[in-house]
Amino acid sequence: MTKPAFIAGDWGTSRLRLYLCDASGAVLARTEGEGAAVGGHADRFAAAVAAWDGEHGVLPAVLGGMVGSTIGWKDVPYLACPARPEAIAGAALKFEQDGRAIAIVPGLRCAGPDVMRGEEVQILGALRLNPALARGRHVFCMPGTHAKWVTVQDGAVLDFNTALSGELFELLRKHSVLARDSGAVDVTSAAFALGLKTVREAGRDLLHLLFGARARVVTGEMAKADAASYLSGLIVGADVAGGIARAGGGTVHLICTPALAALYGAALADYGVAHTVIDGDAAALAGLVQLHAELFS
Amino acid sequence: MTKPAFIAGDWGTSRLRLYLCDASGAVLARTEGEGAAVGGHADRFAAAVAAWDGEHGVLPAVLGGMVGSTIGWKDVPYLACPARPEAIAGAALKFEQDGRAIAIVPGLRCAGPDVMRGEEVQILGALRLNPALARGRHVFCMPGTHAKWVTVQDGAVLDFNTALSGELFELLRKHSVLARDSGAVDVTSAAFALGLKTVREAGRDLLHLLFGARARVVTGEMAKADAASYLSGLIVGADVAGGIARAGGGTVHLICTPALAALYGAALADYGVAHTVIDGDAAALAGLVQLHAELFS
Repeated sequence: MTKPAFIAGDWGTSRLRLYLCDASGAVLARTEGEGAAVGGHADRFAAAVAAWDGEHGVLPAVLGGMVGSTIGWKDVPYLACPARPEAIAGAALKFEQDGRAIAIVPGLRCAGPDVMRGEEVQILGALRLNPALARGRHVFCMPGTHAKWVTVQDGAVLDFNTALSGELFELLRKHSVLARDSGAVDVTSAAFALGLKTVREAGRDLLHLLFGARARVVTGEMAKADAASYLSGLIVGADVAGGIARAGGGTVHLICTPALAALYGAALADYGVAHTVIDGDAAALAGLVQLHAELFS
Repeated sequence: MTKPAFIAGDWGTSRLRLYLCDASGAVLARTEGEGAAVGGHADRFAAAVAAWDGEHGVLPAVLGGMVGSTIGWKDVPYLACPARPEAIAGAALKFEQDGRAIAIVPGLRCAGPDVMRGEEVQILGALRLNPALARGRHVFCMPGTHAKWVTVQDGAVLDFNTALSGELFELLRKHSVLARDSGAVDVTSAAFALGLKTVREAGRDLLHLLFGARARVVTGEMAKADAASYLSGLIVGADVAGGIARAGGGTVHLICTPALAALYGAALADYGVAHTVIDGDAAALAGLVQLHAELFS
């Protein structure tokens, strides 16, 4: 086993993922914990890495995500776009805790106004995993609760926009009559494809399209079980239609889970837009490794 | 006191309003009860009007709204658009219950597909209250949980579209981070006007605009207390922008509460569109009176 060199922490609102890495960024061990929305960050972090400390000594740590927000461990101000990788590293908050050097990554803000926290680490990771993306202009889409559409120019985060796609779907799924008693979302279903087609033909005016999920069931045109897939098709379709209109063309690089990549990949294909997929967890880890190299080497 | 002739019932999902009327439709007494979402409709209706029965004998009743749906007293099929007033009356379900003649009004469906149940009664009422609207082409907007935009041509309901405006606002207000700790919506606030302006300038792609309510607070550009007004401005603005684009111009006749009329009136003015206001409860009552005249006279 190679020698442990640092701890990388992907600490979002609802989840903490910790990686014990060697100097090259290879993962030697991993553990998980509660998200940044829960307090007591210093104690919880110490407890989560205590076994590693005992075995390997106290190692430096690089942490990204909501851990750097007002609800997190430390409030690290947003860095303004355009933001180059070295500027993101430079704006990290470095401090010492119980003899450990810790760096918490800043979030980014742009003129929208819009903000992100954690996704900038994934962007850095995507550029590390695929260095060709660090040259020229590229569009990234990071689907999720708050989906981010990000334009990167020669490695710098130029601009971005947040879509409420994941949260909107979950709220409507849980609380509205639109997809009551529906089955799960099926990306291969005719209902998902119909949702995409409806937005493509009628425009991305979701407010006036969403009730169609209910009306189609009530009028017997759609099975109850298909309503969630249709609703997902509408929302993912509107997200992609808006995202590519704002981005102005080109391949879209998805950074997310395989399940979301399937939904967004289908929607992008529906618009004839090429895409690649970068795993979200792998991108976050690669970004933290990149930041460690810039901050502690 | 003139002689009681019939009972009019506006029986929506969450509320029952009963009116004891004379032959001309003048209201002699009123009472309220639970909405159609609660079962036991026959018994609840009998109990609600028992005092009137005792005093005036058993009178016929005309009921509209969700009382005619699958969750209501009787399932009255949707009538297809275009639908003339006499066709709506003709499609009512008439039955006898405990010696009382009862008519339940059908809902409407259109090609969208889209459906309404209850709003068709308000449309009939608006035409009765303002006979000039029964000639030519007119656009009605009925803001609420599920806002309806309705085109009426020479008294017939031609087509309509449902916007999820009220439900979307409530869901985001209650469950999302967008307007957490915000104050109430203030139609006279700069934040509401900014919401309208943002949609007017950026287009009605709400999915990519909603997160701005949060981003503006996080970046310090907007006070927490203003977030709900901004969010309302975005949603009402997008509803009106989409509604008038679909309607294709002309004065918009709002049928709703005074509070919603203030929000939608401000948004319509923002687009330079004239509007009138018809009280929602008055329209429902006038519609039931009109239907009674056609069904029982």
